[in-house]
Amino acid sequence: MNTQLLQTINELSSPTSYNRVYHEPNHGMPMPSTETMKEIVALLREIIFPGYFGVDSLDEEIIHYHTGVNVEKLYEILSEQVKRGLCFDCKMPAPTKSHCAQCEIKAQKIATAFIQELPEIRRILSTDIQAAYNGDPAAHSIGEIIFCYPTVKVLLNYRVAHALVKLNVPLLPRIISELAHSETGIDIHPEAQIGEYFCIDHGTGVVIGATSIIGNHVQIYQGVTLGAKSFPLDENGNPIKGVARHPIVEDNVIIYANATILGRITIGEGAIIGGNMWITNDVAKGEKVSQSHGI
Amino acid sequence: MNTQLLQTINELSSPTSYNRVYHEPNHGMPMPSTETMKEIVALLREIIFPGYFGVDSLDEEIIHYHTGVNVEKLYEILSEQVKRGLCFDCKMPAPTKSHCAQCEIKAQKIATAFIQELPEIRRILSTDIQAAYNGDPAAHSIGEIIFCYPTVKVLLNYRVAHALVKLNVPLLPRIISELAHSETGIDIHPEAQIGEYFCIDHGTGVVIGATSIIGNHVQIYQGVTLGAKSFPLDENGNPIKGVARHPIVEDNVIIYANATILGRITIGEGAIIGGNMWITNDVAKGEKVSQSHGI
Amino acid sequence: MNTQLLQTINELSSPTSYNRVYHEPNHGMPMPSTETMKEIVALLREIIFPGYFGVDSLDEEIIHYHTGVNVEKLYEILSEQVKRGLCFDCKMPAPTKSHCAQCEIKAQKIATAFIQELPEIRRILSTDIQAAYNGDPAAHSIGEIIFCYPTVKVLLNYRVAHALVKLNVPLLPRIISELAHSETGIDIHPEAQIGEYFCIDHGTGVVIGATSIIGNHVQIYQGVTLGAKSFPLDENGNPIKGVARHPIVEDNVIIYANATILGRITIGEGAIIGGNMWITNDVAKGEKVSQSHGI
Amino acid sequence: MNTQLLQTINELSSPTSYNRVYHEPNHGMPMPSTETMKEIVALLREIIFPGYFGVDSLDEEIIHYHTGVNVEKLYEILSEQVKRGLCFDCKMPAPTKSHCAQCEIKAQKIATAFIQELPEIRRILSTDIQAAYNGDPAAHSIGEIIFCYPTVKVLLNYRVAHALVKLNVPLLPRIISELAHSETGIDIHPEAQIGEYFCIDHGTGVVIGATSIIGNHVQIYQGVTLGAKSFPLDENGNPIKGVARHPIVEDNVIIYANATILGRITIGEGAIIGGNMWITNDVAKGEKVSQSHGI
Amino acid sequence: MNTQLLQTINELSSPTSYNRVYHEPNHGMPMPSTETMKEIVALLREIIFPGYFGVDSLDEEIIHYHTGVNVEKLYEILSEQVKRGLCFDCKMPAPTKSHCAQCEIKAQKIATAFIQELPEIRRILSTDIQAAYNGDPAAHSIGEIIFCYPTVKVLLNYRVAHALVKLNVPLLPRIISELAHSETGIDIHPEAQIGEYFCIDHGTGVVIGATSIIGNHVQIYQGVTLGAKSFPLDENGNPIKGVARHPIVEDNVIIYANATILGRITIGEGAIIGGNMWITNDVAKGEKVSQSHGI
Amino acid sequence: MNTQLLQTINELSSPTSYNRVYHEPNHGMPMPSTETMKEIVALLREIIFPGYFGVDSLDEEIIHYHTGVNVEKLYEILSEQVKRGLCFDCKMPAPTKSHCAQCEIKAQKIATAFIQELPEIRRILSTDIQAAYNGDPAAHSIGEIIFCYPTVKVLLNYRVAHALVKLNVPLLPRIISELAHSETGIDIHPEAQIGEYFCIDHGTGVVIGATSIIGNHVQIYQGVTLGAKSFPLDENGNPIKGVARHPIVEDNVIIYANATILGRITIGEGAIIGGNMWITNDVAKGEKVSQSHGI
Repeated sequence: MNTQLLQTINELSSPTSYNRVYHEPNHGMPMPSTETMKEIVALLREIIFPGYFGVDSLDEEIIHYHTGVNVEKLYEILSEQVKRGLCFDCKMPAPTKSHCAQCEIKAQKIATAFIQELPEIRRILSTDIQAAYNGDPAAHSIGEIIFCYPTVKVLLNYRVAHALVKLNVPLLPRIISELAHSETGIDIHPEAQIGEYFCIDHGTGVVIGATSIIGNHVQIYQGVTLGAKSFPLDENGNPIKGVARHPIVEDNVIIYANATILGRITIGEGAIIGGNMWITNDVAKGEKVSQSHGI
Repeated sequence: MNTQLLQTINELSSPTSYNRVYHEPNHGMPMPSTETMKEIVALLREIIFPGYFGVDSLDEEIIHYHTGVNVEKLYEILSEQVKRGLCFDCKMPAPTKSHCAQCEIKAQKIATAFIQELPEIRRILSTDIQAAYNGDPAAHSIGEIIFCYPTVKVLLNYRVAHALVKLNVPLLPRIISELAHSETGIDIHPEAQIGEYFCIDHGTGVVIGATSIIGNHVQIYQGVTLGAKSFPLDENGNPIKGVARHPIVEDNVIIYANATILGRITIGEGAIIGGNMWITNDVAKGEKVSQSHGI
Repeated sequence: MNTQLLQTINELSSPTSYNRVYHEPNHGMPMPSTETMKEIVALLREIIFPGYFGVDSLDEEIIHYHTGVNVEKLYEILSEQVKRGLCFDCKMPAPTKSHCAQCEIKAQKIATAFIQELPEIRRILSTDIQAAYNGDPAAHSIGEIIFCYPTVKVLLNYRVAHALVKLNVPLLPRIISELAHSETGIDIHPEAQIGEYFCIDHGTGVVIGATSIIGNHVQIYQGVTLGAKSFPLDENGNPIKGVARHPIVEDNVIIYANATILGRITIGEGAIIGGNMWITNDVAKGEKVSQSHGI
Repeated sequence: MNTQLLQTINELSSPTSYNRVYHEPNHGMPMPSTETMKEIVALLREIIFPGYFGVDSLDEEIIHYHTGVNVEKLYEILSEQVKRGLCFDCKMPAPTKSHCAQCEIKAQKIATAFIQELPEIRRILSTDIQAAYNGDPAAHSIGEIIFCYPTVKVLLNYRVAHALVKLNVPLLPRIISELAHSETGIDIHPEAQIGEYFCIDHGTGVVIGATSIIGNHVQIYQGVTLGAKSFPLDENGNPIKGVARHPIVEDNVIIYANATILGRITIGEGAIIGGNMWITNDVAKGEKVSQSHGI
Repeated sequence: MNTQLLQTINELSSPTSYNRVYHEPNHGMPMPSTETMKEIVALLREIIFPGYFGVDSLDEEIIHYHTGVNVEKLYEILSEQVKRGLCFDCKMPAPTKSHCAQCEIKAQKIATAFIQELPEIRRILSTDIQAAYNGDPAAHSIGEIIFCYPTVKVLLNYRVAHALVKLNVPLLPRIISELAHSETGIDIHPEAQIGEYFCIDHGTGVVIGATSIIGNHVQIYQGVTLGAKSFPLDENGNPIKGVARHPIVEDNVIIYANATILGRITIGEGAIIGGNMWITNDVAKGEKVSQSHGI
Repeated sequence: MNTQLLQTINELSSPTSYNRVYHEPNHGMPMPSTETMKEIVALLREIIFPGYFGVDSLDEEIIHYHTGVNVEKLYEILSEQVKRGLCFDCKMPAPTKSHCAQCEIKAQKIATAFIQELPEIRRILSTDIQAAYNGDPAAHSIGEIIFCYPTVKVLLNYRVAHALVKLNVPLLPRIISELAHSETGIDIHPEAQIGEYFCIDHGTGVVIGATSIIGNHVQIYQGVTLGAKSFPLDENGNPIKGVARHPIVEDNVIIYANATILGRITIGEGAIIGGNMWITNDVAKGEKVSQSHGI
């Protein structure tokens, strides 16, 4: 090993170099692991859609056993990751031992509460799948949609991440939604609120911002952005966090490919937004907005 | 393990919960496996592009041995997956043993017929690669294109999936095309018909619908949609399946980034469609259509 | 095994079939391996962001050991891949043994020189992360951005690939940038020149061409294209390689979602380009260009 | 690849070379797999000793789920291996399709019958473990014995293999007993008959022949052989198969290290055989036989 | 899944069945894992013999980095296993939280103390290796002995396990010694006391009991037993634990193959015991004892 | 990480500690790898016994392809290991570049020459298998013996290792023979000379020394030692290497369990040695030697 390499190792190991990017959770707790979060999502797919993923055959007698084993494993690794997430976020300068023990118990309670949401998550996902089936003349069966439609992948991750957001889990929801973003090209912020029977067709390039609110039976296509127009800045010129800045999309709206909808505006119930549209103002209930300059 | 978890396991294992998403193939045959389909695609890459993937060095003397081993393995796992695909789709309420045995033989015949197509698939892919090389000033060699251009990844999957469509294999073609969609952001429906020397540059966000017909020497860029304008509905308000609803793109057409082309219209031979265009009517042979309001 | 399969194996193993796609590097050296390139990128993530990836906990005392082990491994596998890259590209009809030995030494020197760049690459990436944090009201911490923002993934690969471009390494930079393209939907050519504090929000569909030049503190959104308008052709009608054909984007520019900027034009310092814009001419310093026909 | 290698490949691929060692089961059925047999033994350890192997923690609520999942998997892979074992052994020159279908059903029945034996196998093993605990002053707990005493490993394999022998499964029992032989140095033929509360201390070098019969509460030490004295030959000079040729060891016998006991003799109830003894005749009930020439 | 299987699953999951073999550590702590113990032994081999195992090349500059990374990993997984070992053995009926916290700290202290022994363990092993080299005319180098002599494998495990015994770690030492027993056929109880320059040639079948004491420069061959003659029983007829019952072997003794030495006797300094001998009484200093009836 | 650990890492990384066990091959070449040697043995099993190991089904059409692929892989990894073995053993203080290049070519020639021996090794092994079948009344078929008899495992490794000895390969033969020793408890030195139709029954504890010479049709049982009586010492008291010191066993000899045969003596053709015998003098042709004191 030559001198240059040894010297570079020293440079890279010097706090003046790594401190720019270093994050040490309180109490030396390890950080959350994106690999384990992938495992958690894979487990959730197996639990929610028995027979499709993981094991390739599950008859009725044995779903119970598999669900039991999978839920137990999920509980174990999820409570560990939640605990790490809480530590990652912990601002307390010198937490006492008993504070940390409380966090461990809190993590287990969160994992339990999350798992109790799974039957409801499965139910809502089944409405999303139904919507995808109804909306795509090329779909042959519900099973085909579960197997390979990106809308199912991304909504499973979104609905799971959103449930964790509601339980005030830091960091993990964003990791989960980015896993789906990477797989599908669809970027749904886990804090967004989305109703039932939601469907995204093709989907690549879709962006749904953190304060978006979407009703039931909404259908959107690839490249649609529900974004922010501008960020109100505070007196120091920094964006103010937590301000509602993304659209409200009411029930039964359809938004075609590559439409861009910006700001805290409302797309009224049953409205239809044509492809490539650029929308920065409210659209009335039932209105149809489309390109006039198509050829 | 606490009571809440045990109760949730029971809920998740109850048919009233899982039946919304459950699909049990006839005769207890296992379902197709997306993991195995990935393996099949990886094998096909090794067979079609010897030396690039899997084994990193293949001299001429030993290509024969590797091809033999790979084709045998492909035959074995593909016929199993085809059989599972047929069962997944089987509508027969109570198939007899001998009916199932016929399906097994049918699956083996399909796998054989598919493998016989591989030399032709390799030949067509070599025209696609040539087109990518000709169209990209930044490309240094054919080899570089095979190694890392997404157009090669997505077209290998498309041409393979399309060959399976022509052999009436259910489900598997969609799984294969979604694997490429996830990897490249390019969504080509396996039922689309695409000629030789086809090339997609960059490609993220491209959508090519099921009834599209594309000629030879066509070149398209990222974000292009060949989509449907609207779906004719049947008397119950459901989309009628199987109607031609996507564009016909004739030979030598170029379509620039983010253009949206909708409906069963024809883009005539040699036409050039500019970026971001919204096209819902025929474009004549040789016509150039572009943004007038660019700055 | 039936006759049809045996015959297909023979066809596929015949040079007349595989020669269309075959590339044999000089001297029988194996080809670069995309799997190993993935491993290299994973190692680089571990080295540059200690504690986030690979090992989930790194306290200060042991960063030195991990960095040492990782850098050594990186040196070993990277010099091997660089050597293969040089051979892949070697045009010499019958290189002598001593020529090949020189290439091996050259590869080791390149790997050393590249590793010496890592502290600087880490420093620049820390500016990119800072920019992402400042630009996103939904971001909670620097750590969250490193963990899951696609802008970090893609810029790590870009900055690494660009360093290899400057060291004249063939092929590998393209493989590295395509790995990030596949993961993030963001396609940055490794030859592009990009300043500090660069940030891409959401990012799916972004394309940055090979001769683009981007200043400091530039921020762009999903779907933005920095592309070529047309390629000057040589007398044979082939595109002339190496001509500057992509935009120059000066310091402090913001480009909103899905804007398309084409040709060797200049977007002046501090300019703001609105979403969905189609720009083919220079934009002056400080100018704001936006859709007039939004609703 | 040089000519010598190509020529050797041809030689090795010629039937005149490989036919000396080749075995092709009827109907092209694959052969049993020693790797899968290892997996089966590992599954059995998990099922029989919940919490020790595989998963490192099993509380009472979830043993049921794990047992269900493991038994289902065992059934699936064991019936496949039994079917392969039957085909391996099949002497029928040209079996009809329906004959083969019967074998498949037979294999499933055998796997079911075998699994029904597992509670009894667990019960007998618990007596063996108790015997090991009673006999070793260095043992601290039942759990320690299950974790690491070779007597438990080898007797699990023996009792499992013997149950398959009683179900007339060919080949697999021998593979299972050789797996334990390799791990422990103890070679128990699966056809031997062994009572409850059996214990082998240390065990390396122990050999127990196919027609041995061992009572309850027998204890033996390392290096003990229960072997055959000579084989009766048939008229062609080949050993006659199936003749009783190994010892009968009655209840409560102890045999110390390296004793060799040969032929169809009887070691009477409660006898004690000293170390290094060479025994070829019956030993009476309660007799103690030992080295007279020890120093 | 048929009824018989479901019923067997129920039987196997009933406490009346599994309680015979079940061990639940206090506080639901998971049990030690033999797989992790294998990993620990592999790590120790890498640390003690740098360059031979794991990484196949270690030059002087980088031994430091590798040792640092390996020791840190060892510390982490060993303290976890020690904690599990303490829990496995815990007899306290209802330990308080703070008692358990003390055990965790105790486990970390033990792991630290153990790691501090490693330089000394390496030093003693180097004397054992020297002894093996001197004793075997077929040995070509120290390196060959480290690579493949079973005496090195078994003594590494023994010396490591013995160090843990001295730190009062339950269970783990036995698991470690049984791992070596399985690999080498040599069964050394971790409580035995063995001096420097110890060497076992070939070794299969060697047994060294828990209360054996062996001096320096002792050499033994395959099949040698240092065993107990009989166990003193308590009033209930159970063996009394902890009584010295195995031989003392003084410095410079040689014991040839298959000799059996039983009871708390002393083999005096420099004595030589011939092969196959049966020894139950003291052997004087310098005495040579051998078979008189060899041919 | 506490101070004690950091200090221990320093101690372990100090040359005064690790130099006792360190071996640095000339020119920084990596050391041979026992893991790779395991892979080589596994490959050889697949090549020599097609259909039994690795792939579980090989029909005649495809043996050629598999053999080709396996032999190519074997050549590649074996020549690398042979080169490492030569470097490990290299005594040259400062080898020139061209000397090292010669070693690389030498290693490739050795690998080729070794592979050319494989058909003959297969032929001899088939005689060993035949001998095992004839000698064991419990054997059902040739296939059963290949699958699970330890005599086949150990003789494959021996015959392979011996072929490498004849090609003057250092170190690797010993690694190969120890792999089999660990798996079977049978320790055959690779320099021993062994004829055809050789068979070891059960085998645990067998030792066959380096200068042993064994004829054809010899059969031995578990625990048999062919050892050295004493080593002639040189003037410094070190054993003289390379002296013939183990037995010659002529054709058709049978040696029963646990017999010990020591020194350069001859066991004449057709002799039979009884179990537990201690032999240190020649045994005449056809003689039968057995225990007189059996009971």
